[in-house]
Amino acid sequence: MIKIVLLGAGNLGFHLTANLLNNKAIELVQVYNRSIEKIDYLKNKVEITDKLNELKKADIYILCVSDDTISEVSSKLNFPNSMVVHTSGGTSLNELKSNSKKGVLYFPQTFSKKRTIDFSNIPICIETENKEDLIILHQFSEEISKNIYFINSEQRQRLHLAAVFVNNFANIMYKIGNDICSNTNVPFDILKPLILETASKIGEISPYEAQTGPAKRNDTKTISKHKKLLHKNQKEIYTLLTDFIIQSYE
Amino acid sequence: MIKIVLLGAGNLGFHLTANLLNNKAIELVQVYNRSIEKIDYLKNKVEITDKLNELKKADIYILCVSDDTISEVSSKLNFPNSMVVHTSGGTSLNELKSNSKKGVLYFPQTFSKKRTIDFSNIPICIETENKEDLIILHQFSEEISKNIYFINSEQRQRLHLAAVFVNNFANIMYKIGNDICSNTNVPFDILKPLILETASKIGEISPYEAQTGPAKRNDTKTISKHKKLLHKNQKEIYTLLTDFIIQSYE
Repeated sequence: MIKIVLLGAGNLGFHLTANLLNNKAIELVQVYNRSIEKIDYLKNKVEITDKLNELKKADIYILCVSDDTISEVSSKLNFPNSMVVHTSGGTSLNELKSNSKKGVLYFPQTFSKKRTIDFSNIPICIETENKEDLIILHQFSEEISKNIYFINSEQRQRLHLAAVFVNNFANIMYKIGNDICSNTNVPFDILKPLILETASKIGEISPYEAQTGPAKRNDTKTISKHKKLLHKNQKEIYTLLTDFIIQSYE
Repeated sequence: MIKIVLLGAGNLGFHLTANLLNNKAIELVQVYNRSIEKIDYLKNKVEITDKLNELKKADIYILCVSDDTISEVSSKLNFPNSMVVHTSGGTSLNELKSNSKKGVLYFPQTFSKKRTIDFSNIPICIETENKEDLIILHQFSEEISKNIYFINSEQRQRLHLAAVFVNNFANIMYKIGNDICSNTNVPFDILKPLILETASKIGEISPYEAQTGPAKRNDTKTISKHKKLLHKNQKEIYTLLTDFIIQSYE
């Protein structure tokens, strides 16, 4: 059974802890967080600590800490025979400063404490410093998900950037849509099936093929009507994205 | 049984025709399109025509034609006791130039011929010139969908604008994500569960709450790393949206 110590109690740490506690092929031996209060809810299920020098022995130490503390936290882990992995999309494997084996376990997914997450459908992108260490990281990943990819630091950085577009930037489009609806007393719920269909569609056809709307048709009449309805910042975004779509389909 | 003549064979016309042909409470009496070849596939199922002066009698004439032909096509319909409706999000009811009763039937959804569509989950936004005509349009809509909203022309124009953000602009984010993946030989499939989760999430929490990522955290280190990886146009979009998110969460 693979022994795990998990460090961090942010959104990913929270969900991954819950998953590992229910995973029969994995032994979660300890959860660390710098503030113990945040993991107090776990104390009857697993050993908890807020002291890095009290960490137990494990096969893999999984850092679910913020990007800028990866170097510092990893430098305090002294387990030469174990593996230390971080879970950051935008951080190179080399930011790990421990004397342990090094790896990365990246889940390209958005985690919110309020949403339950089915890890079996979330892809896991793995990387290790030494090829031979891939075995255990792959073995661990297989217990969590069906979709495992070997992605190096360079690729992962770009994948993380692509994720910003499809997730963070798509979501801010939802927010602007919501704001426009609120201002005209139209329930945002009307747009939810459209949002789901837009996302589902690209399971079957490419985003290039899936594009529709006034910008794609270069429908200048509708575009200029729309611009008149928008606030300054919204209008700037509308104009830039419309021009980008027009150019993409020229 | 409500009698319908449907005009137009674009994406919406195509899917709505298929739905009405299978709808036992509605009699689709005729389909019109200015080029007969495009509706030839229907000839064994319903009467087809490419002549506006050969239209049959019906209760409702549904225009699924392009926005800029709504006035012209409707002006040729001379059925004072029937209703003529258009299906355009961005077009006012007043663009209808027939001497019939006037209405609008707007489906805020994205239609592609390659995707099958379940109309029962698509909201229908209806409007009529005269209040008493709402009854038949509502009755018709109920045979198609569970979710019917009364939306006037002013609201619909803004709803259509909001739809551009959540659909067309979200989709162009997917396209940029896809382009970034292709350029670094990472399968775009890795991001599909993230895309679906991003869209599903706002079924439960508001887009404002759902926002995550470097811009929301104002993580300037990651943001400047990302900017270095982008082409000119992509970088311009990244910068504008990142600044907009930072401002939204200040």
